[in-house]
Parts: sequence; structure tokens; C-alpha cells
Amino acid sequence: MTAHLLTIGDEILIGQIIDTNSSWMGRELNLKGIRVTSRSSVGDTREAIWNGIEHAAQLADVVIMTGGLGPTKDDITKKVLADYFESEMYLDEPTFERIKGYFTKINRPLPPTMSDQATLPTKATILANKVGTAPGMWFEKDNKVYISLPGVPFEMEYLMTQEVMPRLVQRFQARPIAHRTLLTACEGESMIAQRIEQFEDNLPTHLKVAYLPGLGQVRLRLTGVWEGPVTPTAEAELNAELDVKIREMEAIIPDLVYGYEDDSLAKVIGRKLLEKNWQLGTAESCTGGYIAHLLTEVAGSSAYYPGSVVAYSYEMKEKLLGVPKSLLETEGAVSEACVKAMAEGALDTLGVDIAVAVSGIAGPGGGTPDKPVGTVWMAVATREKTLAAKHIFGRDRLKNIQLTATYALNMVRKVLG
Amino acid sequence: MTAHLLTIGDEILIGQIIDTNSSWMGRELNLKGIRVTSRSSVGDTREAIWNGIEHAAQLADVVIMTGGLGPTKDDITKKVLADYFESEMYLDEPTFERIKGYFTKINRPLPPTMSDQATLPTKATILANKVGTAPGMWFEKDNKVYISLPGVPFEMEYLMTQEVMPRLVQRFQARPIAHRTLLTACEGESMIAQRIEQFEDNLPTHLKVAYLPGLGQVRLRLTGVWEGPVTPTAEAELNAELDVKIREMEAIIPDLVYGYEDDSLAKVIGRKLLEKNWQLGTAESCTGGYIAHLLTEVAGSSAYYPGSVVAYSYEMKEKLLGVPKSLLETEGAVSEACVKAMAEGALDTLGVDIAVAVSGIAGPGGGTPDKPVGTVWMAVATREKTLAAKHIFGRDRLKNIQLTATYALNMVRKVLG
Repeated sequence: MTAHLLTIGDEILIGQIIDTNSSWMGRELNLKGIRVTSRSSVGDTREAIWNGIEHAAQLADVVIMTGGLGPTKDDITKKVLADYFESEMYLDEPTFERIKGYFTKINRPLPPTMSDQATLPTKATILANKVGTAPGMWFEKDNKVYISLPGVPFEMEYLMTQEVMPRLVQRFQARPIAHRTLLTACEGESMIAQRIEQFEDNLPTHLKVAYLPGLGQVRLRLTGVWEGPVTPTAEAELNAELDVKIREMEAIIPDLVYGYEDDSLAKVIGRKLLEKNWQLGTAESCTGGYIAHLLTEVAGSSAYYPGSVVAYSYEMKEKLLGVPKSLLETEGAVSEACVKAMAEGALDTLGVDIAVAVSGIAGPGGGTPDKPVGTVWMAVATREKTLAAKHIFGRDRLKNIQLTATYALNMVRKVLG
Repeated sequence: MTAHLLTIGDEILIGQIIDTNSSWMGRELNLKGIRVTSRSSVGDTREAIWNGIEHAAQLADVVIMTGGLGPTKDDITKKVLADYFESEMYLDEPTFERIKGYFTKINRPLPPTMSDQATLPTKATILANKVGTAPGMWFEKDNKVYISLPGVPFEMEYLMTQEVMPRLVQRFQARPIAHRTLLTACEGESMIAQRIEQFEDNLPTHLKVAYLPGLGQVRLRLTGVWEGPVTPTAEAELNAELDVKIREMEAIIPDLVYGYEDDSLAKVIGRKLLEKNWQLGTAESCTGGYIAHLLTEVAGSSAYYPGSVVAYSYEMKEKLLGVPKSLLETEGAVSEACVKAMAEGALDTLGVDIAVAVSGIAGPGGGTPDKPVGTVWMAVATREKTLAAKHIFGRDRLKNIQLTATYALNMVRKVLG
């Protein structure tokens, strides 16, 4: 089965927003064996939307549209869809009730435009949007499926996951397809490829490794597509084969793998802390709270993460973490001695069992010939020992912050064992 | 003049990479009055590329392609282009010399595939790529222009800026187009639409408002397209008209507007702090460092942001912020009294002039009938006064964190005046 993704909205065309929706959808559909064979974006005019739908339907079995469903004047997708599918409009009471309930819940008056939001084409199957106002719509015509979703990413993701994917999988019987993912940190794609080259070369043709690089991390996804007849046991057999192969792959690079599937360094660290019944503290300079954010994004993190300190200035490093003024003056804040003192200070200030500290030059300013932008020191301290490491990342401030966080969390993970 | 952007490559379709090239090009073209009226992405097959070019040419005057020019096997764009324009291939000596020079410069041996990189269609005007190996190509047919560029972002950007834009502007005399953007926080799209409805209704037809919603924020973009004859003063006249209109629009919703164009709440706050020569501190519970991260993402923030405390546990709230234990026991951590005490405590602990504190139930657990998941208290304290506010957001942990940060930063902005 093939899909075409159609994005509607001038803001995409003039580049005011980056189209992350299409990437997300492409990935999710691909995981279920639905191939996105083309994508397009059109502006907010009747003609552009109409022609966009018509063209998309020539290219694929399923057309998934996003955008243009808001209550404002420039959003005309719904009207075009109604005409395209020769459909009347009606006020859908369940949708209107849901929208009213949504505004009651967030304790806001109901804007008058909301009856428009609940006015829908009669030929659409309504996909209830429980995280926003505009519902999704599902149309069928000449054996093709047309789906319209709001452009707000979390609303689109909710509707795709809860409503669209299960219906698509049910409607189009696809060949079994399955995936296993290894998560690695702090090693580059080409170095990993070199280490698992032989494993990859020996894989049967229906198994394939994909490298999904992120900042400081690479996900290795092993995909299997069932090639034999689709028997009742086919899916189980494919999964069993993948379970064996993924263990083989992990055994080649055990030092790099920190988790599986949708895990994260912060979640893995959380589980290790719970096991040990330890509390973790953070003392951040150049990452400015980003490590704390990654840790506390995890639900339940309050069980092992009591708090932290962001010590940007010398004074805060002294006052909140007890870093000696003389040390800051002789060694500087970006030094092995300073991050060790910060981590050890955090153990005391925060009363935790393990603490991580980072200090570096995130940029774009502040670099020196000795310590160029991107230079970062990090330390992890426990009651027994303190380890430190130095890295030199790049010139981009946000990337330096993110890379530092990844490397520091990976260091914590290794110390936790 | 209209343009169509055509991205070539499977990696885009399956969502392995996000298409940032198209956004960049859309923005740059738009600034020069070249309207991107549609975009599309196709896979790495001859048929898909061929049909993609044919379709694109029906939609616009200029087709700009990116991707598929690398030396690897799956990159076939150049061959398809040669056939499409009924063109022979030849080894272009100047290009080959340039590539050889490039490898000499980076001190690497010349890979054998590089003569392929210099083998080009006879009908192409070559656009010299001084920052990579694959040159850009410019074709013309039936009064339409077709441009092919490498997909590597900085190579594409180099060729667009140095070669493509000047040629396009010279070839097509474009109608001026201009934009102004207002940034608003903490009010929904539909409520804003209601307030500016009359303004929108009274706009001349060549001006249009677009709503670009984000989490807790809406950007309002006013676009003007010049409709009269393109005189030397046309662009200036259009810009003057937009300047007047955007001020009119802002005057209707002054309470909601925090900035313009590519600004952010954190940057606006930073500038206000520098003006006042004030230091800001943060004391976060439920946002767990995210507010600190937003503030420190801004280059130069160390000038006004010495540090902060993330106090997740009762103990940290007592120890680092001096919140009385009795208060926590009687009122709870998610209370007006607690956030006020946290903000006031942060003024002292951090030695700052203004402090913001947040405490809430990010979820998914921890809600009670009295204080459901999404309940957040926030306070801003200065040496003169302390203000507090309560909000009830939704059920999603990460969204609650992000919304809380936006609302809290907006509160800081308002207190700063």
C-alpha cells in the first residue's frame, strides 16, 4: 500500500514553519509497512487544494492531508473537501459537545467560531480529536482513502496514533513487518557501521539495518519484512527471528548500546536509580537546566530526582555548590578541577548519592585559543569517587547544549553500572 | 513569478531526515517576491523523478530541485535530467578541475567516482559549487526554468545565494511581496480572531492575515502583495503600508503582543533585564529546569541570568529556597503560598532582582480531585511585590511543562513592564 502526504498552508511554502509533520508521518507509516511514495505542499487557496488532492489521488492509495482546519478565515480545507466529495455540511452534535467540554475543562468561554469547527461534511467519518478542537475526517472514494488532520503537531500525532493507523492497518491487509531498535550513544554512524559490517553482510535479504542518527546518538533499526505466504504464524515467526538477530547485533557493540525501542538515557538512568534506591542531583553551567529538563520530562522522576542547581555565574558556583573562589580564579570555570568541585559540591548541597556537573563554552561567544567554543568539562561524583571527562563539540550553541547533555547522561549511566 | 520546490530522495519520504531545505528556500525566495506556490517530494526512481518534474512544470514558472546529485548509486537525478531535456553527457573540464582542487585543499585523495561528478548534461548551464563537489545545473525549456541543486544544506544555500537568486531576479521581474509578524502569548487562536475580526474584514484584498499557532503562542502574519505596476518605489510603498497596518493590528491587542518577527519570550525578557540592569532567577518545581533552559538557550544570557534552582522535593524547597516546612504541610507544594515563598526565597538565595517560581502537577500521576493533573501555580517576585496566578492545563506531561514555561515567562515579561 502506498500513501501520499499533502500539507496545506502558505506558512509551509514561505518557510515560516518547518514541516516536521510529514517526517513524523513518513516514519510511522513506514513502520507499519505503508510506503510514503510522494509528498506535496500547497497553499491556502481553493484551486491549489483541489488540484493537490486530485494529483495526490493519482499517485497513491491513501492521501493524508494536514493543515487548514483551524477556525480562522484562512483555513478553507474543510469547505473544499465537502465540495470535492459532493457533500453537504451539518452541525455534528457529538463534536460540538466534545468541543464545549474541552473549553469547560480548560475553563475558558466558548468562542463563537466553535460551531463552525463542529460543522462537518456529511460524507466524512469523524475522527474525534480529544486533544484539540478540529476533528479529523476520513473520506473514501473510488476505493481510495482520504484523511484530513489538523496541522498542530500533537493533535496530528494523537489522531494518527489513535484513529488513523489502526483503521489503515485494518483496511489494507499488509504483509507482516516488524522492527527492533537498539539505542546507542556517543559514537558516530560510520564507526558503528564499521563494527557491524560483517553482521550486516550476513543478514538474509528480508532483514535490513537502518541507521537513524540524532545528535550524539544513533538508533539502529532492524526491519524484517515477511516474504513467505502469510500464514497465521507468520508474524510470530518473523518476530522470533528478529529477537535472535537483534541480540546478535547487540553482542557486537555492547559498550555502545544503552537501551531499546523508545527508551531514553533519562529513562534508563531513572530505572537504575530506582533499583539502587539512589537519588541523583545535577549541577549545570553551560547546559543551563537542559539536563534537569531531560531528567524531569520522565514521569515519576520525582522519586529519584529531588532537584538541582543551575550555576551560570562564578558566584552561584561558590554560593550554591561551594566551589572555592581561588579554584575558579586559577583554573577557570571550564576546567577539570571546577567540574569535580561542582559535582562534589552538589552531593552535599543536594544531599544526593550521585551528582553530575557540566561546565563549558556553549558559544557563540566566550571562546579562547586555549578553550575554543564547544569545549566542555563534565564530572560524575559518588560517595566513593569522582570521574571527569573533556569533550570538544562544535560552534552551534544549541547543539553544544544538547550534545553536552547526552554525553553527561551517558557518563551517569556508565557510573551507575 | 511562481516557483515549485521539488525534493528528491527516499530519506525524506520515510522521515529519516526533516526537509529543512524547502523551508529555507521558501523564505529566501519569498523575500525576493518569488512566490513558492507548491512543493513536492519524490523517491529515488526514474519514473518518480520524471513525473515529479513534469507535474512541477505545470504548476509554476520555476522548478527548483534538491537532492539526488551525490556520487552514490541511488542518486540518479542527473541522468533523468539529461534524458528529460534530451541532452548528451560530457566531462566538464572546469568542473573536474574545481573538484580536483577541492580535494587537494582538504588534503584527501581524489575518489574515482569524481569524474562522474564532473560528467554533466550538455544543455545545462553549470552553477559552480565552491563548497562541495556536485555542481548546480540550470535548464530552460518552453520559457520555464529548471534548477537542480545538491541536497546538502550548506551547499544548497551557497548555490542559491551566489548563483540562483541573482539569475532569477534578473530573469523574472517579480512583484514585491512583504510580511510583518506579531508574536502573541497565552491566548487562543479563535479568541484572537474574534478580537481582530473587524480589522481583518476591512483589509484591502492585497493584504492577508495568517494565524500560526504553537503551544501557548500564536504568530500573526500580515502579508502584502503589490498589485499595481512595479515602479522603483513599489517595494518601499508596500512596506510603508504594512508598517501602518501592523501597528493598527497591534493596537487592537496590545495586551497579547510580546514581540515581532523571529523574537522569543526569553529574548524579549533578556533585553528588558539588560535595560533595567536586573538579574533574573528561577525556582522551578514542575517544569524541572525547562524555564532555565529556555532562558539560557539565548546567547549572552549569562549577563542577566546567574543561575537557578530546580526544587522538585519538599526538602529542596525548604533547603534551597527557605519555604517553611509548616507551609508545605498545611498548604501543599502546589499552592499560592508555596510559589510565593519559592519566588521570594529565590530572590534571596540567588541574590537576584526578580524571580519566577512554578509548582504544579505535570502528570500523568499525582492529581487529586482538588488539584487535577495540569494544575499549576506560578509567582513572580521583585523587591517590591509578589504576584501569583493559577492555571489549569491538560493531561500531557510535556505539554504541561511547555505551557507552564510559556505562561511563567509571559508573566515575567509583564512584570518587567
